[in-house]
Amino acid sequence: MAQTPPTGLQLQSLVTAAETLEVFLADVSVPEPGPDEVIVAVEAAPINPSDLGLLFAGADMTAATRSGSGERPVVTAPIPHAAMRALSGRVGTPMPAGNEGAGIVVAAGSSAAAQALLGKTVAVAGGSMYAQFREVNVAACLELPDGMTAAEGASSFVNPMTVLGMVETMRREHHSALVHTAAASNLGQMLSRLCIEEQIQLVNIVRRPEQEELLRSAGASHVCNSSSPDFMADLTDALKQTGATVAFDAVGGGRLAGQILTCMEAAASATAPSYSRYGSSVHKQVYIYGSLDRGPTELARSFGMAWGVGGWLLTPFLQKIGPEGMARLRRRVADGLTTTFASSYTAEVSLAGALQLAAIADYGRQATGSKYLIKPTS
Amino acid sequence: MAQTPPTGLQLQSLVTAAETLEVFLADVSVPEPGPDEVIVAVEAAPINPSDLGLLFAGADMTAATRSGSGERPVVTAPIPHAAMRALSGRVGTPMPAGNEGAGIVVAAGSSAAAQALLGKTVAVAGGSMYAQFREVNVAACLELPDGMTAAEGASSFVNPMTVLGMVETMRREHHSALVHTAAASNLGQMLSRLCIEEQIQLVNIVRRPEQEELLRSAGASHVCNSSSPDFMADLTDALKQTGATVAFDAVGGGRLAGQILTCMEAAASATAPSYSRYGSSVHKQVYIYGSLDRGPTELARSFGMAWGVGGWLLTPFLQKIGPEGMARLRRRVADGLTTTFASSYTAEVSLAGALQLAAIADYGRQATGSKYLIKPTS
Repeated sequence: MAQTPPTGLQLQSLVTAAETLEVFLADVSVPEPGPDEVIVAVEAAPINPSDLGLLFAGADMTAATRSGSGERPVVTAPIPHAAMRALSGRVGTPMPAGNEGAGIVVAAGSSAAAQALLGKTVAVAGGSMYAQFREVNVAACLELPDGMTAAEGASSFVNPMTVLGMVETMRREHHSALVHTAAASNLGQMLSRLCIEEQIQLVNIVRRPEQEELLRSAGASHVCNSSSPDFMADLTDALKQTGATVAFDAVGGGRLAGQILTCMEAAASATAPSYSRYGSSVHKQVYIYGSLDRGPTELARSFGMAWGVGGWLLTPFLQKIGPEGMARLRRRVADGLTTTFASSYTAEVSLAGALQLAAIADYGRQATGSKYLIKPTS
Repeated sequence: MAQTPPTGLQLQSLVTAAETLEVFLADVSVPEPGPDEVIVAVEAAPINPSDLGLLFAGADMTAATRSGSGERPVVTAPIPHAAMRALSGRVGTPMPAGNEGAGIVVAAGSSAAAQALLGKTVAVAGGSMYAQFREVNVAACLELPDGMTAAEGASSFVNPMTVLGMVETMRREHHSALVHTAAASNLGQMLSRLCIEEQIQLVNIVRRPEQEELLRSAGASHVCNSSSPDFMADLTDALKQTGATVAFDAVGGGRLAGQILTCMEAAASATAPSYSRYGSSVHKQVYIYGSLDRGPTELARSFGMAWGVGGWLLTPFLQKIGPEGMARLRRRVADGLTTTFASSYTAEVSLAGALQLAAIADYGRQATGSKYLIKPTS
């Protein structure tokens, strides 16, 4: 382990009993790798929307303050009392964060598999990636092709597997086309590319004209703007054309999920052979996988009885499809890492830089077009 | 067909393009039965909550007026504009109503099966039962045991099959205990009896102390009052004790469905081995099968990501379990028609009596403890 220092920085998030969040950098020791383990020097780790829940614990980040030194900043923010119930399990325990990332294997255990990775650039989806060093089992490493940088491979798990999971869920549950909200996000653009490639009809819902333009210029056929006065009519038309009866919704709060169901029902009723008192018999499903709007989901239930709304999360989906299904999706990702599944970033920051209040305000609002990459070794 | 007159009264519901509901009695001809058909002189048909949607079409019945004669009343009521979208398929077409009922077979087709029912008292779940005569296929008839009256057998389908469907759904989806709302209803009392018999843990949610008392005195172990200031704590306790992770909700609107999910999550987290940023991995499900509160369903999403809310309806459930499954449930009902699956009524009315404004105001508000039986031949 000549190349690894005894300790490295790790970003940690702590919820205190005083209903306060503290995010800071801790020195943690770099362990000796076990036989099947390697030590990865993390070069790049994205900040995904799915990282923010653990990182900020629902605290009011508009009230965040920063103390400590420039290299060892401490960000503190108040947690609304109502959010504490769900956090009771983590009070007092500093938690590492960062679902995925990539870096170079700088130390390896004794097994042949571990030794084979020494010096290689690998992508890892194991959590705790906002750190300078991370020990992981070799099974959790995806060796990147020669010449691919850690930055290019850093987002090779969460977004790619999520969009593949959406398409897979659509097929497994016997739908034939998809609806996606917040569709101009990095993930949304990736889903759009995948659907174009696989000739799956996709209805993209965005909030702004420039987002419409972005998706259309990349080849999307159906883009609806939820801020338009014609939104409900436009969406119903797109649903009639595509026959989409399942939606993946990153917004969560407000009326959007219910509006999608209402338009799906209107599209289904338009082609129904006769009136039914209970609405159409077509099952309409919205999966909420994000929470850009943290407010309550409001369902007007003007869409008959054949409907469902529920949470959707990558990990249980992967458990459902099992190791073989997961391996198949991983191969699909590896084949398209610089094309279909490529990510782009608007800013690169160090671990300390990720705790700048201005940076938090930027990536924390989860606005489309703002995506950060942490480079822990910089 | 010596015993059947050429025509009989039938209650009909009409939505007009002028956004008005008209409910009236029409003379309809009594047809010759086909080989496998019988003519039932309907003696008793219940007004179930599931009948009201077709009957009143979402009209504002507090603004209803009555005209016509005492024997041929016409009830008229305005339909809110917003409700018309879902009704476009039935504008201008008078629709018969009444999901189920029972009566005497007064004419039969030529087949042996039809002839065998002549003179028998049968229960029928075929729709159009608010009528003096109803022609039905013999396959839709359940012959009642000797000595059982039509009134005793009139509700042998909707409520019994619904409560059996709830228990069956619980088992098929790998839950081990149930939650039920509006639990002091006729259906709720039936579900409570069934769960006691089958030793299934049931958490009953009611709104009033006398409803708590009613269920407890009938042997219910877990009854929570949603009007109590301790409701959330009481419900969480009951969910911890029972492990119930699926609920059937007759209320639909408001915060109740979300509160149930929140308490299920609290119960699941209390026993979880470690903190998870996405909440517990226990799937929590609420099925909305009624709409006592027609307002929007409001979900605060304070219950992790493993959850679902959806519509539940008897007919698609029966299609899902197929003819064999349905036959099995029918036998179960037949065995308990005067015990587990018995219904009781607070009033009996004629067809014209069902169109009295005072009666509509009573059964139309779907209050627990108010259930009407129409006796078309009286």
